[in-house]
Amino acid sequence: MSLTVVGSIALDTVDTPWGRNEEGLGGAATYFSLAASHYTRVHLVGVVGEDFPGEHVALLQSKGIDLDGLERAPGKTFRWTGRYHRDVNHRDTLDTQLNVFAGFHPKLPEAARNAEFLFLGNIHPALQLEVLDQAKASFVALDTMNLWIHTTRDDLGKVLSRVDCLIVNDSEVKDLTGEHNVVSGAEAIRALGPQIAVIKKGEHGCLLFHDGGIFAAPAFPLRNVMDPTGAGDTFAGGFMGHIAQSGNTDAQTLRRAVVHGSVVASYACEAFGPGRLAGMTPSDITERFDAFRRLVAF
Amino acid sequence: MSLTVVGSIALDTVDTPWGRNEEGLGGAATYFSLAASHYTRVHLVGVVGEDFPGEHVALLQSKGIDLDGLERAPGKTFRWTGRYHRDVNHRDTLDTQLNVFAGFHPKLPEAARNAEFLFLGNIHPALQLEVLDQAKASFVALDTMNLWIHTTRDDLGKVLSRVDCLIVNDSEVKDLTGEHNVVSGAEAIRALGPQIAVIKKGEHGCLLFHDGGIFAAPAFPLRNVMDPTGAGDTFAGGFMGHIAQSGNTDAQTLRRAVVHGSVVASYACEAFGPGRLAGMTPSDITERFDAFRRLVAF
Repeated sequence: MSLTVVGSIALDTVDTPWGRNEEGLGGAATYFSLAASHYTRVHLVGVVGEDFPGEHVALLQSKGIDLDGLERAPGKTFRWTGRYHRDVNHRDTLDTQLNVFAGFHPKLPEAARNAEFLFLGNIHPALQLEVLDQAKASFVALDTMNLWIHTTRDDLGKVLSRVDCLIVNDSEVKDLTGEHNVVSGAEAIRALGPQIAVIKKGEHGCLLFHDGGIFAAPAFPLRNVMDPTGAGDTFAGGFMGHIAQSGNTDAQTLRRAVVHGSVVASYACEAFGPGRLAGMTPSDITERFDAFRRLVAF
Repeated sequence: MSLTVVGSIALDTVDTPWGRNEEGLGGAATYFSLAASHYTRVHLVGVVGEDFPGEHVALLQSKGIDLDGLERAPGKTFRWTGRYHRDVNHRDTLDTQLNVFAGFHPKLPEAARNAEFLFLGNIHPALQLEVLDQAKASFVALDTMNLWIHTTRDDLGKVLSRVDCLIVNDSEVKDLTGEHNVVSGAEAIRALGPQIAVIKKGEHGCLLFHDGGIFAAPAFPLRNVMDPTGAGDTFAGGFMGHIAQSGNTDAQTLRRAVVHGSVVASYACEAFGPGRLAGMTPSDITERFDAFRRLVAF
Protein backbone atom coordinates (compact mmCIF):
# COMPACT_ATOMS: atom_id res chain seq x y z
CA MET A 1 0.00 0.00 0.00
CA SER A 2 1.17 3.57 -0.50
CA LEU A 3 2.40 6.19 1.91
CA THR A 4 2.21 9.98 1.87
CA VAL A 5 4.63 12.23 3.72
CA VAL A 6 4.28 15.98 4.24
CA GLY A 7 7.25 17.89 5.59
CA SER A 8 10.36 19.93 5.01
CA ILE A 9 12.81 19.69 2.16
CA ALA A 10 16.00 21.58 2.81
CA LEU A 11 19.54 22.35 1.88
CA ASP A 12 21.65 21.47 4.92
CA THR A 13 25.10 22.67 5.84
CA VAL A 14 26.55 20.36 8.45
CA ASP A 15 29.81 20.84 10.31
CA THR A 16 31.37 17.97 12.24
CA PRO A 17 34.83 17.23 13.65
CA TRP A 18 35.20 14.81 10.70
CA GLY A 19 34.28 17.19 7.89
CA ARG A 20 31.76 19.58 6.46
CA ASN A 21 28.89 19.09 4.03
CA GLU A 22 27.86 22.35 2.32
CA GLU A 23 24.27 22.81 1.14
CA GLY A 24 23.57 19.11 0.80
CA LEU A 25 20.15 17.57 0.31
CA GLY A 26 18.28 17.59 3.61
CA GLY A 27 14.91 18.03 5.29
CA ALA A 28 12.67 15.69 7.26
CA ALA A 29 10.47 14.69 4.32
CA THR A 30 13.56 13.96 2.23
CA TYR A 31 15.09 11.56 4.75
CA PHE A 32 11.70 10.02 5.42
CA SER A 33 10.96 9.46 1.72
CA LEU A 34 14.35 7.99 0.87
CA ALA A 35 14.08 5.54 3.79
CA ALA A 36 10.46 4.57 3.08
CA SER A 37 11.08 4.21 -0.67
CA HIS A 38 12.91 0.93 0.05
CA TYR A 39 9.64 -0.51 1.33
CA THR A 40 6.70 1.04 -0.52
CA ARG A 41 5.44 3.69 -2.95
CA VAL A 42 5.94 7.15 -1.41
CA HIS A 43 4.11 10.39 -2.26
CA LEU A 44 6.21 13.37 -1.19
CA VAL A 45 4.41 16.65 -0.43
CA GLY A 46 6.60 19.68 0.21
CA VAL A 47 8.02 22.88 -1.22
CA VAL A 48 11.36 23.93 -2.66
CA GLY A 49 12.65 27.19 -4.12
CA GLU A 50 13.82 28.05 -7.62
CA ASP A 51 17.40 27.27 -6.54
CA PHE A 52 16.71 23.62 -5.68
CA PRO A 53 19.24 21.57 -7.68
CA GLY A 54 17.88 19.29 -10.40
CA GLU A 55 20.22 16.51 -9.26
CA HIS A 56 18.28 16.25 -5.97
CA VAL A 57 15.01 15.95 -7.86
CA ALA A 58 16.60 13.30 -10.04
CA LEU A 59 17.80 11.35 -6.98
CA LEU A 60 14.32 11.29 -5.45
CA GLN A 61 12.79 10.28 -8.78
CA SER A 62 15.34 7.51 -9.20
CA LYS A 63 14.03 5.93 -6.00
CA GLY A 64 10.49 5.83 -7.42
CA ILE A 65 9.23 8.60 -5.14
CA ASP A 66 6.13 10.35 -6.51
CA LEU A 67 6.94 14.07 -6.74
CA ASP A 68 3.56 15.31 -8.00
CA GLY A 69 3.16 17.00 -4.61
CA LEU A 70 6.56 18.70 -4.74
CA GLU A 71 5.79 22.39 -5.22
CA ARG A 72 8.40 24.74 -6.67
CA ALA A 73 7.78 28.25 -5.31
CA PRO A 74 9.38 31.61 -6.16
CA GLY A 75 12.30 32.26 -3.81
CA LYS A 76 14.96 30.20 -2.10
CA THR A 77 14.80 26.70 -0.60
CA PHE A 78 14.64 26.21 3.19
CA ARG A 79 18.19 26.15 4.60
CA TRP A 80 19.51 24.72 7.87
CA THR A 81 23.04 24.96 9.26
CA GLY A 82 24.20 22.92 12.23
CA ARG A 83 27.33 21.79 14.01
CA TYR A 84 28.04 18.48 15.74
CA HIS A 85 30.75 17.95 18.34
CA ARG A 86 32.83 14.89 19.23
CA ASP A 87 29.89 13.70 21.31
CA VAL A 88 27.49 13.50 18.39
CA ASN A 89 24.47 13.35 20.66
CA HIS A 90 24.55 17.10 20.98
CA ARG A 91 24.35 19.59 18.16
CA ASP A 92 24.02 23.33 17.77
CA THR A 93 21.70 24.86 15.21
CA LEU A 94 23.71 27.76 13.80
CA ASP A 95 21.23 29.10 11.29
CA THR A 96 17.71 28.47 9.98
CA GLN A 97 16.33 30.23 6.89
CA LEU A 98 12.72 29.21 6.25
CA ASN A 99 12.56 30.94 2.84
CA VAL A 100 9.77 29.36 0.71
CA PHE A 101 8.88 27.05 3.62
CA ALA A 102 7.50 30.09 5.51
CA GLY A 103 4.53 30.43 3.13
CA PHE A 104 3.94 26.70 2.62
CA HIS A 105 0.40 25.34 2.53
CA PRO A 106 0.39 21.65 1.65
CA LYS A 107 -1.71 20.71 -1.38
CA LEU A 108 -2.13 16.96 -1.77
CA PRO A 109 -2.55 15.65 -5.34
CA GLU A 110 -5.03 12.83 -5.94
CA ALA A 111 -2.61 9.96 -5.31
CA ALA A 112 -1.28 11.53 -2.11
CA ARG A 113 -4.84 12.04 -0.82
CA ASN A 114 -5.73 8.42 -1.50
CA ALA A 115 -2.71 6.81 0.18
CA GLU A 116 -3.67 4.40 2.96
CA PHE A 117 -0.83 5.60 5.19
CA LEU A 118 0.17 9.16 6.07
CA PHE A 119 3.09 10.68 7.95
CA LEU A 120 2.73 14.25 9.18
CA GLY A 121 6.28 15.55 9.40
CA ASN A 122 7.27 18.18 11.92
CA ILE A 123 5.51 21.32 10.59
CA HIS A 124 3.07 23.82 12.14
CA PRO A 125 0.07 21.94 13.61
CA ALA A 126 -2.30 24.21 11.69
CA LEU A 127 -0.75 22.92 8.47
CA GLN A 128 -0.96 19.35 9.77
CA LEU A 129 -4.71 19.93 10.25
CA GLU A 130 -4.95 21.16 6.63
CA VAL A 131 -3.33 17.91 5.53
CA LEU A 132 -5.68 15.81 7.66
CA ASP A 133 -8.65 17.57 6.04
CA GLN A 134 -7.41 16.53 2.60
CA ALA A 135 -6.15 13.01 3.26
CA LYS A 136 -8.11 9.74 3.34
CA ALA A 137 -5.45 7.66 5.10
CA SER A 138 -6.67 5.01 7.53
CA PHE A 139 -3.45 5.17 9.59
CA VAL A 140 -1.71 8.44 10.43
CA ALA A 141 1.55 9.00 12.29
CA LEU A 142 2.75 12.35 13.58
CA ASP A 143 6.00 14.07 14.42
CA THR A 144 6.19 17.37 16.30
CA MET A 145 8.69 19.42 18.28
CA ASN A 146 9.11 21.48 21.45
CA LEU A 147 8.38 24.73 19.59
CA TRP A 148 4.83 23.62 18.68
CA ILE A 149 4.26 22.04 22.08
CA HIS A 150 4.94 25.40 23.70
CA THR A 151 3.44 27.84 21.18
CA THR A 152 0.52 26.10 19.44
CA ARG A 153 -0.81 23.76 22.07
CA ASP A 154 -4.47 24.02 21.00
CA ASP A 155 -3.87 23.15 17.37
CA LEU A 156 -1.45 20.40 18.40
CA GLY A 157 -4.13 18.95 20.68
CA LYS A 158 -6.56 18.83 17.75
CA VAL A 159 -4.00 17.03 15.60
CA LEU A 160 -3.20 14.55 18.38
CA SER A 161 -6.87 13.65 18.75
CA ARG A 162 -6.99 12.70 15.05
CA VAL A 163 -3.86 10.56 14.63
CA ASP A 164 -3.02 6.92 15.38
CA CYS A 165 0.64 7.16 16.25
CA LEU A 166 3.00 9.78 17.70
CA ILE A 167 6.74 9.49 17.06
CA VAL A 168 8.74 11.85 19.30
CA ASN A 169 11.99 12.28 21.23
CA ASP A 170 12.09 11.59 24.95
CA SER A 171 12.65 15.29 25.72
CA GLU A 172 9.48 16.11 23.80
CA VAL A 173 7.52 13.61 25.90
CA LYS A 174 8.45 15.59 29.00
CA ASP A 175 7.44 18.87 27.39
CA LEU A 176 4.18 17.47 26.05
CA THR A 177 3.01 15.59 29.15
CA GLY A 178 4.96 17.02 32.08
CA GLU A 179 5.99 13.47 32.97
CA HIS A 180 9.65 12.69 33.71
CA ASN A 181 8.95 8.98 33.75
CA VAL A 182 8.77 7.60 30.23
CA VAL A 183 6.12 4.97 31.03
CA SER A 184 3.82 7.57 32.58
CA GLY A 185 4.61 9.90 29.68
CA ALA A 186 3.57 7.31 27.13
CA GLU A 187 0.31 6.69 29.02
CA ALA A 188 -0.36 10.43 29.00
CA ILE A 189 0.27 10.56 25.24
CA ARG A 190 -2.17 7.71 24.64
CA ALA A 191 -4.77 9.64 26.66
CA LEU A 192 -4.37 12.56 24.22
CA GLY A 193 -5.38 10.45 21.21
CA PRO A 194 -2.70 8.36 19.53
CA GLN A 195 -2.93 4.73 20.67
CA ILE A 196 0.63 4.07 19.54
CA ALA A 197 3.54 6.04 20.98
CA VAL A 198 7.09 5.68 19.71
CA ILE A 199 9.65 7.41 21.92
CA LYS A 200 13.04 7.91 20.33
CA LYS A 201 16.15 8.15 22.50
CA GLY A 202 18.91 8.67 19.90
CA GLU A 203 21.88 6.39 20.56
CA HIS A 204 19.89 4.72 23.35
CA GLY A 205 17.30 3.29 20.98
CA CYS A 206 13.56 3.64 21.34
CA LEU A 207 10.45 2.44 23.11
CA LEU A 208 7.15 1.49 21.47
CA PHE A 209 3.97 1.62 23.54
CA HIS A 210 0.97 -0.12 22.03
CA ASP A 211 -1.99 -2.29 22.96
CA GLY A 212 0.31 -5.30 22.98
CA GLY A 213 2.52 -3.83 25.70
CA ILE A 214 5.94 -2.21 25.53
CA PHE A 215 8.68 -2.98 23.03
CA ALA A 216 12.23 -1.78 23.70
CA ALA A 217 14.77 -1.60 20.89
CA PRO A 218 18.37 -0.51 21.29
CA ALA A 219 20.01 1.65 18.64
CA PHE A 220 22.36 -0.33 16.43
CA PRO A 221 25.83 0.27 17.92
CA LEU A 222 27.97 2.15 15.39
CA ARG A 223 31.73 2.66 15.55
CA ASN A 224 31.64 5.56 13.10
CA VAL A 225 28.83 8.06 13.36
CA MET A 226 29.56 10.56 10.62
CA ASP A 227 26.39 12.68 10.56
CA PRO A 228 23.24 11.96 12.61
CA THR A 229 21.24 14.65 10.78
CA GLY A 230 17.91 13.20 9.73
CA ALA A 231 18.29 9.98 11.73
CA GLY A 232 14.94 10.49 13.46
CA ASP A 233 13.15 11.17 10.16
CA THR A 234 14.89 8.19 8.60
CA PHE A 235 13.69 6.05 11.52
CA ALA A 236 10.13 7.24 10.89
CA GLY A 237 10.53 6.43 7.19
CA GLY A 238 11.65 2.87 7.85
CA PHE A 239 8.93 2.45 10.49
CA MET A 240 6.09 3.72 8.30
CA GLY A 241 7.56 2.13 5.17
CA HIS A 242 7.48 -1.33 6.72
CA ILE A 243 3.95 -0.79 8.02
CA ALA A 244 2.72 0.36 4.59
CA GLN A 245 4.48 -2.57 2.92
CA SER A 246 2.86 -5.00 5.38
CA GLY A 247 -0.51 -3.32 5.02
CA ASN A 248 -1.43 -3.82 8.66
CA THR A 249 -0.70 -2.49 12.12
CA ASP A 250 -0.77 -5.57 14.34
CA ALA A 251 1.64 -5.86 17.25
CA GLN A 252 4.25 -7.91 15.41
CA THR A 253 4.25 -5.54 12.45
CA LEU A 254 4.67 -2.53 14.74
CA ARG A 255 7.60 -4.15 16.56
CA ARG A 256 9.32 -5.15 13.34
CA ALA A 257 8.66 -1.67 11.97
CA VAL A 258 10.61 -0.23 14.90
CA VAL A 259 13.54 -2.50 14.05
CA HIS A 260 13.36 -1.51 10.38
CA GLY A 261 13.35 2.13 11.46
CA SER A 262 16.43 1.49 13.59
CA VAL A 263 18.17 -0.35 10.76
CA VAL A 264 17.75 2.42 8.18
CA ALA A 265 18.54 5.13 10.75
CA SER A 266 21.83 3.38 11.52
CA TYR A 267 22.81 3.50 7.84
CA ALA A 268 21.83 7.16 7.63
CA CYS A 269 24.30 8.06 10.39
CA GLU A 270 27.25 6.48 8.63
CA ALA A 271 27.65 9.14 5.93
CA PHE A 272 27.04 12.83 5.34
CA GLY A 273 23.52 13.60 4.15
CA PRO A 274 21.09 11.01 2.80
CA GLY A 275 23.49 9.50 0.27
CA ARG A 276 24.07 6.21 2.10
CA LEU A 277 20.33 5.94 2.62
CA ALA A 278 19.59 6.32 -1.08
CA GLY A 279 22.27 3.77 -1.92
CA MET A 280 21.04 1.04 0.45
CA THR A 281 20.18 -2.30 -1.17
CA PRO A 282 17.57 -4.83 0.01
CA SER A 283 20.43 -7.05 1.17
CA ASP A 284 21.90 -4.18 3.25
CA ILE A 285 18.57 -3.99 5.08
CA THR A 286 18.27 -7.76 5.53
CA GLU A 287 21.86 -8.03 6.72
CA ARG A 288 21.48 -5.40 9.44
CA PHE A 289 18.01 -6.66 10.41
CA ASP A 290 19.63 -10.05 11.06
CA ALA A 291 22.49 -8.38 12.97
CA PHE A 292 19.85 -6.67 15.08
CA ARG A 293 18.41 -10.07 16.01
CA ARG A 294 21.86 -11.24 17.14
CA LEU A 295 22.35 -7.97 19.04
CA VAL A 296 19.37 -8.62 21.31
CA ALA A 297 19.40 -12.45 21.47
CA PHE A 298 19.83 -14.08 24.86
CA MET B 1 30.04 -22.25 42.59
CA SER B 2 30.67 -19.49 45.10
CA LEU B 3 31.26 -15.78 44.71
CA THR B 4 33.24 -13.29 46.77
CA VAL B 5 32.54 -9.57 46.82
CA VAL B 6 34.73 -6.88 48.37
CA GLY B 7 33.32 -3.39 48.76
CA SER B 8 31.54 -0.79 50.80
CA ILE B 9 28.88 -1.32 53.45
CA ALA B 10 27.14 1.89 54.41
CA LEU B 11 24.31 3.62 56.16
CA ASP B 12 22.54 5.67 53.50
CA THR B 13 20.31 8.67 53.93
CA VAL B 14 18.32 9.19 50.76
CA ASP B 15 16.03 12.10 49.97
CA THR B 16 13.58 11.92 47.06
CA PRO B 17 10.46 13.85 46.03
CA TRP B 18 8.52 10.77 47.26
CA GLY B 19 10.04 10.46 50.70
CA ARG B 20 13.16 10.10 52.80
CA ASN B 21 15.03 7.05 54.08
CA GLU B 22 17.23 7.86 57.10
CA GLU B 23 20.38 5.80 57.78
CA GLY B 24 19.12 2.76 55.94
CA LEU B 25 21.24 -0.23 54.98
CA GLY B 26 23.37 0.66 51.98
CA GLY B 27 26.74 0.25 50.28
CA ALA B 28 27.83 -1.38 47.03
CA ALA B 29 28.78 -4.72 48.58
CA THR B 30 25.44 -4.87 50.40
CA TYR B 31 23.35 -4.40 47.26
CA PHE B 32 25.63 -6.75 45.34
CA SER B 33 25.42 -9.49 47.98
CA LEU B 34 21.67 -9.32 48.41
CA ALA B 35 21.17 -9.57 44.64
CA ALA B 36 23.71 -12.37 44.14
CA SER B 37 22.41 -14.34 47.13
CA HIS B 38 19.36 -15.31 45.06
CA TYR B 39 21.68 -17.21 42.71
CA THR B 40 24.66 -18.56 44.61
CA ARG B 41 26.67 -18.67 47.87
CA VAL B 42 28.15 -15.21 48.53
CA HIS B 43 31.17 -14.33 50.71
CA LEU B 44 30.98 -10.69 51.74
CA VAL B 45 34.22 -8.88 52.62
CA GLY B 46 33.93 -5.39 54.08
CA VAL B 47 34.04 -3.28 57.20
CA VAL B 48 31.43 -1.72 59.47
CA GLY B 49 31.70 0.35 62.65
CA GLU B 50 30.57 -0.39 66.18
CA ASP B 51 27.28 1.39 65.45
CA PHE B 52 26.22 -0.98 62.66
CA PRO B 53 22.75 -2.25 63.59
CA GLY B 54 22.39 -5.94 64.40
CA GLU B 55 19.22 -6.12 62.34
CA HIS B 56 21.23 -5.44 59.16
CA VAL B 57 23.63 -8.26 60.05
CA ALA B 58 20.63 -10.51 60.66
CA LEU B 59 19.13 -9.60 57.27
CA LEU B 60 22.33 -10.49 55.42
CA GLN B 61 22.65 -13.74 57.38
CA SER B 62 19.03 -14.63 56.64
CA LYS B 63 19.88 -14.61 52.94
CA GLY B 64 22.66 -17.16 53.51
CA ILE B 65 25.44 -14.62 52.91
CA ASP B 66 28.76 -15.67 54.50
CA LEU B 67 29.83 -12.85 56.85
CA ASP B 68 33.15 -14.32 58.02
CA GLY B 69 34.86 -11.51 56.07
CA LEU B 70 32.72 -8.78 57.63
CA GLU B 71 35.08 -6.85 59.88
CA ARG B 72 33.76 -4.78 62.77
CA ALA B 73 36.22 -1.92 63.44
CA PRO B 74 36.35 0.70 66.20
CA GLY B 75 34.51 3.84 65.08
CA LYS B 76 31.49 4.63 62.97
CA THR B 77 30.15 2.97 59.82
CA PHE B 78 30.62 4.61 56.40
CA ARG B 79 27.77 7.05 55.75
CA TRP B 80 26.41 8.47 52.48
CA THR B 81 23.71 11.08 52.02
CA GLY B 82 22.16 11.85 48.64
CA ARG B 83 19.20 13.55 47.04
CA TYR B 84 17.23 12.57 43.93
CA HIS B 85 15.05 14.91 41.91
CA ARG B 86 11.93 14.29 39.85
CA ASP B 87 14.19 13.18 37.03
CA VAL B 88 15.72 10.28 38.97
CA ASN B 89 18.60 9.94 36.52
CA HIS B 90 20.39 12.76 38.30
CA ARG B 91 21.34 12.83 41.95
CA ASP B 92 23.37 15.05 44.26
CA THR B 93 25.73 13.60 46.85
CA LEU B 94 25.18 15.80 49.88
CA ASP B 95 27.60 14.16 52.31
CA THR B 96 30.12 11.32 52.49
CA GLN B 97 31.69 10.18 55.78
CA LEU B 98 34.21 7.40 55.17
CA ASN B 99 34.65 6.66 58.91
CA VAL B 100 35.96 3.07 59.37
CA PHE B 101 36.05 2.62 55.58
CA ALA B 102 39.02 5.06 55.44
CA GLY B 103 41.34 2.60 57.14
CA PHE B 104 39.99 -0.53 55.45
CA HIS B 105 42.37 -3.23 54.22
CA PRO B 106 40.43 -6.27 52.96
CA LYS B 107 41.33 -9.56 54.63
CA LEU B 108 39.82 -12.56 52.86
CA PRO B 109 38.98 -15.59 55.04
CA GLU B 110 39.68 -19.05 53.60
CA ALA B 111 36.29 -19.54 51.92
CA ALA B 112 36.40 -16.07 50.35
CA ARG B 113 39.90 -16.73 48.98
CA ASN B 114 38.83 -20.02 47.45
CA ALA B 115 35.68 -18.76 45.68
CA GLU B 116 35.76 -19.37 41.92
CA PHE B 117 34.24 -15.96 41.17
CA LEU B 118 35.24 -12.55 42.52
CA PHE B 119 33.75 -9.09 42.26
CA LEU B 120 35.98 -6.14 43.12
CA GLY B 121 33.60 -3.40 44.19
CA ASN B 122 34.40 0.26 43.68
CA ILE B 123 37.24 0.83 46.20
CA HIS B 124 40.79 2.23 45.88
CA PRO B 125 42.67 0.28 43.18
CA ALA B 126 45.54 -0.35 45.62
CA LEU B 127 43.06 -2.25 47.83
CA GLN B 128 41.73 -4.08 44.78
CA LEU B 129 45.32 -5.24 44.13
CA GLU B 130 45.56 -6.47 47.75
CA VAL B 131 42.42 -8.53 47.15
CA LEU B 132 43.74 -9.96 43.86
CA ASP B 133 46.91 -11.06 45.69
CA GLN B 134 44.82 -13.04 48.18
CA ALA B 135 42.12 -14.50 45.93
CA LYS B 136 42.26 -17.64 43.81
CA ALA B 137 39.23 -16.85 41.64
CA SER B 138 39.34 -17.93 38.01
CA PHE B 139 36.98 -15.15 36.90
CA VAL B 140 37.19 -11.60 38.25
CA ALA B 141 34.94 -8.63 37.51
CA LEU B 142 35.73 -5.05 38.45
CA ASP B 143 33.90 -1.83 39.19
CA THR B 144 35.62 1.54 39.46
CA MET B 145 34.76 5.24 39.30
CA ASN B 146 35.89 8.57 37.86
CA LEU B 147 37.81 9.45 41.06
CA TRP B 148 40.19 6.48 40.65
CA ILE B 149 40.43 6.96 36.89
CA HIS B 150 41.73 10.48 37.47
CA THR B 151 43.81 10.08 40.65
CA THR B 152 45.22 6.51 40.68
CA ARG B 153 45.63 5.67 37.03
CA ASP B 154 48.76 3.51 37.48
CA ASP B 155 47.22 1.24 40.12
CA LEU B 156 43.99 1.05 38.16
CA GLY B 157 45.95 0.01 35.07
CA LYS B 158 47.53 -2.84 37.05
CA VAL B 159 44.12 -4.00 38.25
CA LEU B 160 42.65 -3.82 34.74
CA SER B 161 45.44 -6.00 33.37
CA ARG B 162 44.50 -8.73 35.89
CA VAL B 163 40.70 -8.91 35.58
CA ASP B 164 38.35 -10.60 33.13
CA CYS B 165 35.44 -8.19 33.12
CA LEU B 166 34.90 -4.48 33.69
CA ILE B 167 31.44 -3.20 34.66
CA VAL B 168 31.20 0.60 34.38
CA ASN B 169 28.92 3.49 33.53
CA ASP B 170 29.06 5.11 30.10
CA SER B 171 30.49 8.34 31.55
CA GLU B 172 33.32 6.32 33.09
CA VAL B 173 34.13 4.79 29.70
CA LYS B 174 34.76 8.28 28.34
CA ASP B 175 36.99 9.18 31.29
CA LEU B 176 38.90 5.91 31.14
CA THR B 177 39.48 5.72 27.38
CA GLY B 178 38.96 9.24 26.03
CA GLU B 179 36.48 7.78 23.54
CA HIS B 180 33.07 9.41 23.08
CA ASN B 181 31.87 6.53 20.92
CA VAL B 182 30.79 3.59 23.07
CA VAL B 183 31.94 0.93 20.58
CA SER B 184 35.43 2.45 20.33
CA GLY B 185 35.43 2.87 24.11
CA ALA B 186 34.68 -0.80 24.65
CA GLU B 187 37.47 -1.78 22.27
CA ALA B 188 39.86 0.47 24.19
CA ILE B 189 38.79 -1.17 27.48
CA ARG B 190 39.42 -4.64 26.04
CA ALA B 191 42.91 -3.49 25.01
CA LEU B 192 43.59 -2.59 28.67
CA GLY B 193 42.99 -6.16 29.86
CA PRO B 194 39.40 -7.21 30.54
CA GLN B 195 38.02 -9.20 27.59
CA ILE B 196 34.46 -8.54 28.72
CA ALA B 197 33.13 -5.00 29.04
CA VAL B 198 29.69 -4.23 30.45
CA ILE B 199 28.68 -0.60 29.96
CA LYS B 200 25.75 0.53 32.09
CA LYS B 201 23.51 3.37 30.90
CA GLY B 202 21.00 3.65 33.75
CA GLU B 203 17.43 3.87 32.46
CA HIS B 204 18.77 3.28 28.93
CA GLY B 205 19.95 -0.23 29.71
CA CYS B 206 23.39 -1.62 29.02
CA LEU B 207 25.75 -2.99 26.42
CA LEU B 208 27.88 -6.12 26.75
CA PHE B 209 31.01 -6.44 24.60
CA HIS B 210 32.53 -9.91 24.46
CA ASP B 211 34.18 -12.34 22.04
CA GLY B 212 30.74 -13.29 20.77
CA GLY B 213 29.95 -9.74 19.66
CA ILE B 214 27.77 -7.07 21.20
CA PHE B 215 24.64 -7.63 23.28
CA ALA B 216 22.27 -4.73 23.93
CA ALA B 217 19.73 -4.89 26.76
CA PRO B 218 17.20 -2.19 27.58
CA ALA B 219 16.44 -1.33 31.18
CA PHE B 220 13.12 -2.77 32.30
CA PRO B 221 10.64 0.14 31.93
CA LEU B 222 9.31 1.10 35.38
CA ARG B 223 6.36 3.34 36.11
CA ASN B 224 7.46 3.97 39.70
CA VAL B 225 11.13 4.50 40.40
CA MET B 226 11.31 5.08 44.13
CA ASP B 227 15.06 4.98 44.83
CA PRO B 228 17.72 4.07 42.25
CA THR B 229 20.48 3.95 44.90
CA GLY B 230 22.49 0.77 44.48
CA ALA B 231 20.90 -0.16 41.13
CA GLY B 232 24.31 -0.49 39.45
CA ASP B 233 25.67 -2.68 42.26
CA THR B 234 22.49 -4.74 42.21
CA PHE B 235 22.92 -5.20 38.46
CA ALA B 236 26.48 -6.46 39.08
CA GLY B 237 25.17 -8.82 41.77
CA GLY B 238 22.58 -10.37 39.46
CA PHE B 239 25.12 -10.55 36.62
CA MET B 240 27.86 -12.22 38.68
CA GLY B 241 25.34 -14.30 40.65
CA HIS B 242 23.97 -15.89 37.48
CA ILE B 243 27.48 -16.52 36.14
CA ALA B 244 28.57 -18.18 39.40
CA GLN B 245 25.38 -20.24 39.48
CA SER B 246 25.97 -21.37 35.88
CA GLY B 247 29.64 -22.04 36.56
CA ASN B 248 30.75 -20.85 33.14
CA THR B 249 31.29 -17.70 31.09
CA ASP B 250 30.20 -18.67 27.60
CA ALA B 251 28.44 -16.12 25.39
CA GLN B 252 24.92 -17.27 26.22
CA THR B 253 25.60 -17.24 29.96
CA LEU B 254 27.05 -13.73 29.76
CA ARG B 255 24.02 -12.45 27.84
CA ARG B 256 21.54 -14.06 30.22
CA ALA B 257 23.60 -12.72 33.13
CA VAL B 258 23.06 -9.19 31.79
CA VAL B 259 19.31 -9.80 31.73
CA HIS B 260 19.37 -11.19 35.28
CA GLY B 261 21.31 -8.11 36.34
CA SER B 262 18.68 -5.91 34.71
CA VAL B 263 15.85 -7.86 36.34
CA VAL B 264 17.15 -7.56 39.90
CA ALA B 265 18.19 -3.92 39.36
CA SER B 266 14.63 -3.12 38.29
CA TYR B 267 13.27 -4.54 41.55
CA ALA B 268 15.88 -2.62 43.56
CA CYS B 269 14.60 0.70 42.15
CA GLU B 270 11.01 0.07 43.22
CA ALA B 271 11.54 0.65 46.95
CA PHE B 272 13.78 2.56 49.34
CA GLY B 273 17.00 0.75 50.18
CA PRO B 274 17.63 -2.94 49.51
CA GLY B 275 14.42 -4.20 51.15
CA ARG B 276 12.62 -5.18 47.94
CA LEU B 277 15.81 -6.89 46.80
CA ALA B 278 16.05 -9.00 49.96
CA GLY B 279 12.38 -9.92 49.69
CA MET B 280 12.47 -11.10 46.06
CA THR B 281 11.35 -14.68 45.45
CA PRO B 282 12.54 -17.03 42.71
CA SER B 283 9.18 -16.57 40.99
CA ASP B 284 9.63 -12.76 41.05
CA ILE B 285 12.86 -13.25 39.13
CA THR B 286 11.37 -15.74 36.66
CA GLU B 287 8.33 -13.55 36.09
CA ARG B 288 10.34 -10.46 35.21
CA PHE B 289 12.87 -12.48 33.19
CA ASP B 290 9.94 -13.66 31.06
CA ALA B 291 8.57 -10.12 30.85
CA PHE B 292 12.01 -9.08 29.61
CA ARG B 293 11.74 -11.60 26.77
CA ARG B 294 8.39 -10.15 25.76
CA LEU B 295 9.84 -6.63 26.03
CA VAL B 296 12.43 -7.28 23.33
CA ALA B 297 10.59 -9.82 21.14
CA PHE B 298 9.95 -8.91 17.50
